[in-house]
Amino acid sequence: MSNCAIAIHGGAGTILRTSMTPEKEKAYLVGLKESLTAGYEILKGGGTSMDAVIASVVAMENNPLFNAGVGAVFTHDGGHEQDACICDGATKNVGAVAAVKRVKSPITLARLVLEKSPHVLLAGDGAEKFAVANGMELVADQSYFDTDFRRKQLEFALAKEKKDATAHTQLDHSDDNENSKMGTVGAVAVDEYGNVAAATSTGGMTNKRHGRIGDTPMIGAGTYADNKTCAVSATGVGEYIMRGMVSYDISALMEYKGLSLSEAADVVVMEKFFELGGSGGVIAIDRQGNIAMPFNCKGMYRGSMLADGTIELGIFDDRG
Amino acid sequence: MSNCAIAIHGGAGTILRTSMTPEKEKAYLVGLKESLTAGYEILKGGGTSMDAVIASVVAMENNPLFNAGVGAVFTHDGGHEQDACICDGATKNVGAVAAVKRVKSPITLARLVLEKSPHVLLAGDGAEKFAVANGMELVADQSYFDTDFRRKQLEFALAKEKKDATAHTQLDHSDDNENSKMGTVGAVAVDEYGNVAAATSTGGMTNKRHGRIGDTPMIGAGTYADNKTCAVSATGVGEYIMRGMVSYDISALMEYKGLSLSEAADVVVMEKFFELGGSGGVIAIDRQGNIAMPFNCKGMYRGSMLADGTIELGIFDDRG
Repeated sequence: MSNCAIAIHGGAGTILRTSMTPEKEKAYLVGLKESLTAGYEILKGGGTSMDAVIASVVAMENNPLFNAGVGAVFTHDGGHEQDACICDGATKNVGAVAAVKRVKSPITLARLVLEKSPHVLLAGDGAEKFAVANGMELVADQSYFDTDFRRKQLEFALAKEKKDATAHTQLDHSDDNENSKMGTVGAVAVDEYGNVAAATSTGGMTNKRHGRIGDTPMIGAGTYADNKTCAVSATGVGEYIMRGMVSYDISALMEYKGLSLSEAADVVVMEKFFELGGSGGVIAIDRQGNIAMPFNCKGMYRGSMLADGTIELGIFDDRG
Repeated sequence: MSNCAIAIHGGAGTILRTSMTPEKEKAYLVGLKESLTAGYEILKGGGTSMDAVIASVVAMENNPLFNAGVGAVFTHDGGHEQDACICDGATKNVGAVAAVKRVKSPITLARLVLEKSPHVLLAGDGAEKFAVANGMELVADQSYFDTDFRRKQLEFALAKEKKDATAHTQLDHSDDNENSKMGTVGAVAVDEYGNVAAATSTGGMTNKRHGRIGDTPMIGAGTYADNKTCAVSATGVGEYIMRGMVSYDISALMEYKGLSLSEAADVVVMEKFFELGGSGGVIAIDRQGNIAMPFNCKGMYRGSMLADGTIELGIFDDRG
């Protein structure tokens, strides 16, 4: 086990203690712990970081609380279009999918792209054809992903847009979590072989249209892994994560300036990304099992688990 | 004018003098010069680098010799799906489109995304709906982009695949230019205000399927610009350009390690990208008007033009 460790996030945003009931808080903490444990059990059993991050992300895709898989947000047209990406730090291989509609576990398809396709990123119908050609079953109907909670978020967004026709032309950083347009899930891990991996999956933005693709399937933006430096999964306003190349930038600061994981993650999230106008956070891990989870907004669903079984869970900004 | 300068590429690959007729070589050189001049005239008249890179790229999109716009390669299904990206080094704003089918000038739509959309990357039908909603006319039929030359490339690829069913599951680095699956056009410029910009446009890969998206619309992979460092447009095997974060990596080496433009471009293209298994090249420019155009394959259609009107054009590897 040695330096094995895993960290996860379930999205970041304006998550306030005042808008959270004790029941809901508990449900989130249970969901985070289940996800962490799923990945940790694999690491503990001598499994790989690639398998561990998949297991943790799948657990959140299957949990309706998080914006990925079941519980994904609705698009403008009342459907779902999901993105996912996985990076293998040992080989620097990458697989990603964008705008898939009927794939039960987008992160599992991303891994299939990494393993079976010569390509890095497949989108839309073509990605689903690839899934089927490789023996993956699609859900019969998109309603598989529907939840009342997310439908209400779409109705809220559409109503807001009706009042203000320009509402959909702005990126919304300010909505409280109840009506947040964003959300992502992700995991980073290091295994006993010293290999790091990162995985991210998301339903994207509520009320999205025009084939918008966010940061999640963009290598170096929402997801990155390199054994030389670290593995990173980002969450927040995707357009700024892309412009800031947030995940790769943390790696570059470690490689080129010799910063530690925690220094590099802080510089990128709390300074560079923030100055660009971006709001969100990251989880990051290095080969030594160091973990950083900075965020520059009010909260981030997050958790980490070390080789000795120590668990840390968090939702709000507890940095005082 | 001071440090104004512009550089362009029209794709890289196994471009051999032995497989080029004098007529064809001349046609390419004329096309490169027309593209350079279109951008240069704008810079000379006090225009911006953003306008200059658009003008240069549009000239190549309209030229059937290059794999972008008219003359774009065919997909597996005999259609066209084009990608483009533009980065403004002054603001770090970005606009990109992926898999657009009926957009005459994908780079012009990418700029429209930068200017009019809150998003960074729009794909497929959604991107075209956005184009129409913003007053852009689409071509009535995809045949607008057809050329016999590219159709023969598709037929060649399909025939090859018939003989070897696994052919389409491999990335092809080795085909000579006649049958090359790849190709891209791009421009980088610095204007008299000291602002840099980068633009890239491509028809993608011949015989592509499964909604494959390459490096061109991926910020930091195929295209990047930041006044602090440089503007870059890459061409070559997209999957490796993405995995290597080629464009942003050049910028990061300048910012974090203090390398010059030419040192950084050489380290990334001739060492890191090459060691990853990638083949291709970049054009890069900084605020001082320095230009680097390294490539690690047999040739790259390329050219540069300085403030004093000095033109350099190249196709083959003339480095001896």
